Amino acid sequence: MASAANPVSIDRSIVERIVRQVALEYLGRDESGASNDRSSSLGHDSKGKEPELVVQTSSRHMHVCREDMDVLFGPGTELTFDRPLFQEGNFAAKETVTIVGPRSRIISNLRILGPMRKQSQVELAFTDAIMLGFNDLPVRLSGNIKGTPGAVIIGPKGVVELKEGVIRAAIHAHMNPQEAAHFGVKQGDMMKLRVGGPSGVTFNNVHVRIDPTSRLNVHMDTDEANACGLHLTKEVELFK
Amino acid sequence: MASAANPVSIDRSIVERIVRQVALEYLGRDESGASNDRSSSLGHDSKGKEPELVVQTSSRHMHVCREDMDVLFGPGTELTFDRPLFQEGNFAAKETVTIVGPRSRIISNLRILGPMRKQSQVELAFTDAIMLGFNDLPVRLSGNIKGTPGAVIIGPKGVVELKEGVIRAAIHAHMNPQEAAHFGVKQGDMMKLRVGGPSGVTFNNVHVRIDPTSRLNVHMDTDEANACGLHLTKEVELFK
Repeated sequence: MASAANPVSIDRSIVERIVRQVALEYLGRDESGASNDRSSSLGHDSKGKEPELVVQTSSRHMHVCREDMDVLFGPGTELTFDRPLFQEGNFAAKETVTIVGPRSRIISNLRILGPMRKQSQVELAFTDAIMLGFNDLPVRLSGNIKGTPGAVIIGPKGVVELKEGVIRAAIHAHMNPQEAAHFGVKQGDMMKLRVGGPSGVTFNNVHVRIDPTSRLNVHMDTDEANACGLHLTKEVELFK
Repeated sequence: MASAANPVSIDRSIVERIVRQVALEYLGRDESGASNDRSSSLGHDSKGKEPELVVQTSSRHMHVCREDMDVLFGPGTELTFDRPLFQEGNFAAKETVTIVGPRSRIISNLRILGPMRKQSQVELAFTDAIMLGFNDLPVRLSGNIKGTPGAVIIGPKGVVELKEGVIRAAIHAHMNPQEAAHFGVKQGDMMKLRVGGPSGVTFNNVHVRIDPTSRLNVHMDTDEANACGLHLTKEVELFK
């Protein structure tokens, strides 16, 4: 640093670049909110046709409300569609932000997923959370953010201080009522997801989320995917 | 970068510092080879006294052979004791190295664990591995490194090009013969480890390693610990 003409600005830009590289590339995937798909029709003695199970990894991401969008990207701006996610109507936006955690550490290129929501929310893996200084981030279902920590969010047009909304998303299974009937589960039930392979793991608390527009789909975060080596196996089984 | 007098050297030193910060601090722990202890005597209908179960997180680390120690730290040098690990005779050394992966990305401050071994070996979590460019790192028991990838290791006195030895360590349980008898398992068997709490997980392939000098102790890596939120629960149960 001693030879730099302007150490502060160099440091900031390089920090941001390196943190982005490290923080995104150790995940070995792009910056979207979902990747590492694994699908399987392994399963159970079927009641009728076995629904196909798609298991996906959600990288850390943010959902924004209208008010925060105005501050971060400018009044009246809209999210720009980048690519569709598996659940109908959801998409990865081109927009990204920077999150500043309690230790003044940052993660840049935090992808925003659309559409906009009533409340802003940031979903992090524990690996991300601990790096940022959230040492006991609450594990919550999306939308249930009361009493969770906040963070400073930096967009190209402004800065928002979230009062709450930073969570680790609990592993969950989206499904429609027909798929729920197949498994014999109802809204709020817990199921188990077994992932095979050399690092075989059973996730014991998979929350059931039922919606008529949903397609059967388990979402886990990057820690969970790396623990079970989801990228190395196709053997997945969801059961009650 | 434009204003820096010597962009290359500034970049290198900052890269190293930032990668170290990120790569170590997202784990929220120090640089030792083991942390995040969880112990429990929960368990089974006992045959005699229930052995206390200690579950620990192994951060990424390296084991070195005599020959590589000579190159990395100088001929005839010995590892310097920093602190004891749970298994008798094992210790975190003061010595650290830098590993360079296939993508020319690096992790600095990779802790060496002692004592020295016959073969050098690097144990990474998938999060580390993918960041470095090892996209399908083999999951192996320690010591079983035939056919695994290598890496460049940089020490203060020299550089070693490992031909093989980079692995993800399979989750495993150390125990002595009496503890093995208690569980009714033998060398090479698999057990299961259930971790409770909101991110409850059962690890289905916990390798049994029996040695007269061992104390009952499950080792998992940082991905596994972050997936199950090991730092947030005391509910752990090992069973056949």
